[in-house]
This record gives sequence, structure tokens and C-alpha cells, in this order.
Amino acid sequence: MQSYSYNEIKKMDRLFRTHFVNSLAGFKSLNLVGTLGQSGISNLCIVNSAIHIGANPPLMAFISRPPSVERHTLENILSTGFFTLNHIHKSILKQAHQCSAKYKREESEFDKTGLTPYFSKRKDFIAPYVDESNIKIGLEYKKHLNIDLNDTIMVIGQITEIILNPNIVGNDGFVDINAAGTLTNSGLDAYYETTKVNRLSYARPDESVREIR
Amino acid sequence: MQSYSYNEIKKMDRLFRTHFVNSLAGFKSLNLVGTLGQSGISNLCIVNSAIHIGANPPLMAFISRPPSVERHTLENILSTGFFTLNHIHKSILKQAHQCSAKYKREESEFDKTGLTPYFSKRKDFIAPYVDESNIKIGLEYKKHLNIDLNDTIMVIGQITEIILNPNIVGNDGFVDINAAGTLTNSGLDAYYETTKVNRLSYARPDESVREIR
Repeated sequence: MQSYSYNEIKKMDRLFRTHFVNSLAGFKSLNLVGTLGQSGISNLCIVNSAIHIGANPPLMAFISRPPSVERHTLENILSTGFFTLNHIHKSILKQAHQCSAKYKREESEFDKTGLTPYFSKRKDFIAPYVDESNIKIGLEYKKHLNIDLNDTIMVIGQITEIILNPNIVGNDGFVDINAAGTLTNSGLDAYYETTKVNRLSYARPDESVREIR
Repeated sequence: MQSYSYNEIKKMDRLFRTHFVNSLAGFKSLNLVGTLGQSGISNLCIVNSAIHIGANPPLMAFISRPPSVERHTLENILSTGFFTLNHIHKSILKQAHQCSAKYKREESEFDKTGLTPYFSKRKDFIAPYVDESNIKIGLEYKKHLNIDLNDTIMVIGQITEIILNPNIVGNDGFVDINAAGTLTNSGLDAYYETTKVNRLSYARPDESVREIR
């Protein structure tokens, strides 16, 4: 085992440090964020920072990098009030990764990558889903929190619609995202499939956890 | 495909909704948070919400549930100013999951689960690491943000120390957490191993992404 101090991290080459620190939080969620630009351009952005905030009300968030350069996704969410999160599986991975390229505001990542926009049957929900995605989540923007330590922004949305195959929803509400082929990410650019180890029972003091299902 | 609306989610049975919504963000990071209580009790708590906030300065965060009941981890971080994040691998999974049981403030999850506290050689860093963990991250509390939509709290720390096997650090800084056996989580209680699909090259407009290494 080796110990790396704050000062050693600060002295690392910039790109080395970016890879190093980005690997540390653990495996990350992987989603495409779909938004509609003001000129009607459908936008996609890959994010590995979506997190669960709460179930009731159903809230999710993701971290947007500092708005020091054009951030089309953030701009679109703030101007339209809607966004989608779309899980990524193996057969759309390269297209999803390509969405991290710096396209111009007037270019649509859907056009550039060949992914297909899907619009909700609900007329009041205007953000595009990724048709190929097996788990699609529609969210209404609720608020954002500025993280002034590094000027990143946490964008929080409330789930207004979920589109998925009901066969992957268990009797207890658990959604088998592994069965949906959802991938996970580490660092900036590494992608992984998953294999279930187990589900464990609700933990109580002085009771042994057991495997369930 | 089936569409679930906000109103349908609101009407779900409480526990069903908890499992359902918790599954949606995608695969989550998995860590044990180590803290020191004011009476010298070493505390552990399992979290699946740790996220990368930035590499320079190196910042990470996690979401704490509302402090409407005793939250020993949150109390300890605010009173001592330090915490650790410790990756979880298969051979300590049941012990790690058991840390979610509601132990009393004067009880140590280390004692209750048999996990071993490890203290930094740096005397000024007082939070306990999990000795068995293959990737240990020491953080200094920086700030917390209240998410008033549901009274959860985002706790942000700056990395002050990282302890891991240097053999898993690549030439470009990428840390192979898969090689370290780090697990990922979905929902409340499902745990997964990972298999690498690939790493993909930095994406640029009008250039095809390619597999690297």
C-alpha cells in the first residue's frame, strides 16, 4: 500500500491527476442527458454523476461542470425546465461516448451519432429521450445548487415520467437494471458490465444479513 | 415499454416506491464512511452516493439523509472535520452491508462487524479507515449544502490522503478499481461485480472513438 498526500496530488501532472482523482469515488452511474435547445435543437450529453436524492418526492441530480465555457445541457435545462436521463447499454456505448465531443450549439448530438430522439406522448414534456435506451427517465428541473469550492453546479430534477419494460420490475419495486444491460463507468473513459453478487436482507443490529432472491 | 407517471409513482406503496426510484439513477458507487465520534467511538456507515466533484482541488461528496433522526456520521463529520471513504470488495460485503443497521451512538460498527479500524500515520488525520479496504480515501470536511426539497444534505470533502496499491495506478493516472475488487450497487441492497467492456479515446467532433489499452 502507498499513501498519496494532498500535496502530492496537487503536484501531479494535470491530466494524470484528472484520471487519478476521477477514479476514486468508485463505479459511477452512466446516463445520457437529453435536452431541447431554444432553437429546437435536440441535445445529448453523457454524464457519470447522476445520483438518487430521494424517493418521495422522486428526485435525482447530476453535477454540471463550471459554466466558464458553453454548457448547452445546463443552458437548455434552465431555459426549458426539462431534461431526460437515459441509461446506456453496450450496443449504444460508442455513440454515447461520442456525445462528449465538443459539438457546436447548432449541432445535434442525435444527428452526429445516429441516436434517435423519442418524444413523450405527454405534450407538456418537451425534452428528448434516447429511443434506443432501455430505461428512460423524464425530469422537471427543480433547482440547482452552486458548489463554490470549484464552481460546479448540482442540477436537481423531479421525476415526471419513467419509460421501461415492466418485466424488469420486481414484486418489491426493485428495477433490474442489470437485466436492462445498463453499464457502469470508472474514471473518465472506462466502461463496465456487471454481474450480480447478491441482494442482502435489511440489516438489523444483532441479526445476520442473509442473501435474498 | 411502459410509462409510469409522477402521479403513479406518488401512489405506489411506500417500500415499493423506495426500491423502484432507488434503482433508477444507474449503478452507484459503494463506500464505507469512517468517522470518529466525540467520545472516541469509531463509526462506520455504508453509502452509495459518493460522487466526484472535481480533481483540482480534489473534491468528493456524498448525500446524507435528513437529520430528522440521529445521523452519527454527519454529526461526527461536523464535529471533527474529517471522514474517510473506503471501497468495498466481495470478502467484506456482508460486514459492510451490516453497517447499515441502526446501532446506538455508543456502539462501534467496527466492533459489531469485525472490520478493523486503521489510523493514518499522519497524526492530524483522526478519522478511521477500514483496514481491509483496498482503496482508502481520507477527506477533510469543506462544506455541506442543504437540499431543501427533501431535507437531505450534500457533504463535501477535500481529499487529504489516498492509500492504495500503486500497482493498480496506470501510466496515465487511471486507477483500476476493478482490479482492486471494488463492487458497485443498485437500489438499496443489490451488489455487483464488474467486467471491463473497454476504455474509449477522448471524443472529438468528426473523429471516431476507438478502444484504448
